[in-house]
Amino acid sequence: MLNQSNRQIVLAARPKGAPKDSDFRLVEREMPTPGPGQMLTRVIYLSLDPYVRGRMNDGPSYAAPVQIEGVITGRTVSQVMESNLAGYAPGDFVFCDTVGWQEYGIIGGDALGLRKLDPGVAPISASLGVLGMPGFTAWYGLLELGTPQPGETVVVSAATGAVGSLAGQIARIKGCRAVGIAGAPEKCAFAVEALGYDACISHHSPALVADLRAACPKGIDVYFENVGGKVFDAVFPQMNNFSRLVLCGGISNYNVTAPPQGPDRTSMVMMGMIGRRMKASGFVIGDHRDRFDEFQAEVGGWLREGKIRHREDITQGLENAVHAFQGLLEGRNFGKQLVQISSDPTR
Amino acid sequence: MLNQSNRQIVLAARPKGAPKDSDFRLVEREMPTPGPGQMLTRVIYLSLDPYVRGRMNDGPSYAAPVQIEGVITGRTVSQVMESNLAGYAPGDFVFCDTVGWQEYGIIGGDALGLRKLDPGVAPISASLGVLGMPGFTAWYGLLELGTPQPGETVVVSAATGAVGSLAGQIARIKGCRAVGIAGAPEKCAFAVEALGYDACISHHSPALVADLRAACPKGIDVYFENVGGKVFDAVFPQMNNFSRLVLCGGISNYNVTAPPQGPDRTSMVMMGMIGRRMKASGFVIGDHRDRFDEFQAEVGGWLREGKIRHREDITQGLENAVHAFQGLLEGRNFGKQLVQISSDPTR
Repeated sequence: MLNQSNRQIVLAARPKGAPKDSDFRLVEREMPTPGPGQMLTRVIYLSLDPYVRGRMNDGPSYAAPVQIEGVITGRTVSQVMESNLAGYAPGDFVFCDTVGWQEYGIIGGDALGLRKLDPGVAPISASLGVLGMPGFTAWYGLLELGTPQPGETVVVSAATGAVGSLAGQIARIKGCRAVGIAGAPEKCAFAVEALGYDACISHHSPALVADLRAACPKGIDVYFENVGGKVFDAVFPQMNNFSRLVLCGGISNYNVTAPPQGPDRTSMVMMGMIGRRMKASGFVIGDHRDRFDEFQAEVGGWLREGKIRHREDITQGLENAVHAFQGLLEGRNFGKQLVQISSDPTR
Repeated sequence: MLNQSNRQIVLAARPKGAPKDSDFRLVEREMPTPGPGQMLTRVIYLSLDPYVRGRMNDGPSYAAPVQIEGVITGRTVSQVMESNLAGYAPGDFVFCDTVGWQEYGIIGGDALGLRKLDPGVAPISASLGVLGMPGFTAWYGLLELGTPQPGETVVVSAATGAVGSLAGQIARIKGCRAVGIAGAPEKCAFAVEALGYDACISHHSPALVADLRAACPKGIDVYFENVGGKVFDAVFPQMNNFSRLVLCGGISNYNVTAPPQGPDRTSMVMMGMIGRRMKASGFVIGDHRDRFDEFQAEVGGWLREGKIRHREDITQGLENAVHAFQGLLEGRNFGKQLVQISSDPTR
């Protein structure tokens, strides 16, 4: 017996600044029916990712915005309930990019990112984190754009987040000194004790610049940027000649509605990049799906060998997704933020 | 019979903002005598280059500053008068990085950039411009860091300068649309008529942004940055997905003593680089001397085939070097700025 309804969270209004509760609406819709070549799936885990904040804005971006009254976009792990799609049977676990914030989803064969998950190889939720797009982002960005060399110093902001925690661990695997920047003291402790960072400092410290200098006595060769703002300001002047700036995200900016007060340091940054022969690379991981299998093979191997640890922060229930997303943007999550929508038969 | 004195221009004071006449001093020193392994040369051409402004400041940089009372640094073409250095004979023409603003120089075998010039192959002054470090800067920066593809749009600021004029012409050779940005109307006309730019707009135009948009209907794929400031501000928002920012110089900043008023757009630029997957590369050409012969072979070939034009702006007399240098920083030169110190027997 299936439920006869499907709860969804839709965008009620485009957020101005930090998303408010009233920017979202929980709605109850009719249970969808799969057409030819489609399947009906029950969502188990919904991934919350910072990039989704950008999709709530209108205007030009690298991806289309969520429409008003549209289901909020989000990656999911779900289980097939009915299938008219060859190769997929009821009971199968699937990853998909496009289901979003709802209890049930219709998935066609051409859905972005669709793939079957084998719970015997890795926990199904890992496909949303360390073995999914966040992990892929860390792996591609650090190795391809950061090109860390043994003995170099790599700084990672949002050091315990879904992306940062893997970037820091890969830096260590590659023989670098890995220095994290995080917020809460327990995150900094976790970064060093569980993830193996050589040091992790708090961006709440009034002595952030000095703390960073102490943690990076030979300067910074690679900065994996997830935060921006005052964290960027502390890191940039400490970057070495020939250093690389991997521009992955800037979560401190996502809820900002106007640029901060001056002076305008844009020219200083550009001039600094010349004198120090720096390279900065912005990227969006979706452009690099041709490298995904290579990523999975390498990081999956490290995971099985116990070289990589990952941590999940799981909120229960679709109705709590908004609050968890607000927390993610404020750094209240601790590890990869998931929302569990229904039971996981694999654990 | 040699002169018994050597006139030099030394740094009297570190300029604050635009260099003033009183920041320099013309001194008369005794004629130097070459020691073992050295030669005495008579300077014919002194090159004035914007990077020299940076050497007049104290503080950390990629190169040591000029000392107070020290001869201002500058590249030269000179003729050997006496030689205790194997392989060099009186009458030979030589390029050297280190002689500076004076009439006579002592050059040892290990002097940076030292090489003999063959006036039969190219005009000796070209070794300071199109076939020297400025040309090398354009060639390396555009091709190695800008990676222009046929059909792409390449924008070059300081479009008729020593570096820019070659960058624009190489962009055309590579099948790109080349759009220049310059100041004076006669420079813009020269860029199109003599250098072959598809368009050249003036940064004095009150409609700079709109002019640039009209000149770049498909957006900008490569920006070769020599200027910074308001020119950067006009270009950056028009850069395409996957575009490349070649950070070569920022002459509008060289005389600036404090960053401009806010808001601070650093974060906006960084976020823009992520969404548009941009790459920015700062460079200093002195790091890449291993590519110099390759550059000379390729650009020398283009020059002989008539594919490349170059223009020199020659000021007469060491005593006028300061005024010419002040003009260079204000964009008053028109083509590669040289100072002729003594007669050129090759023309």
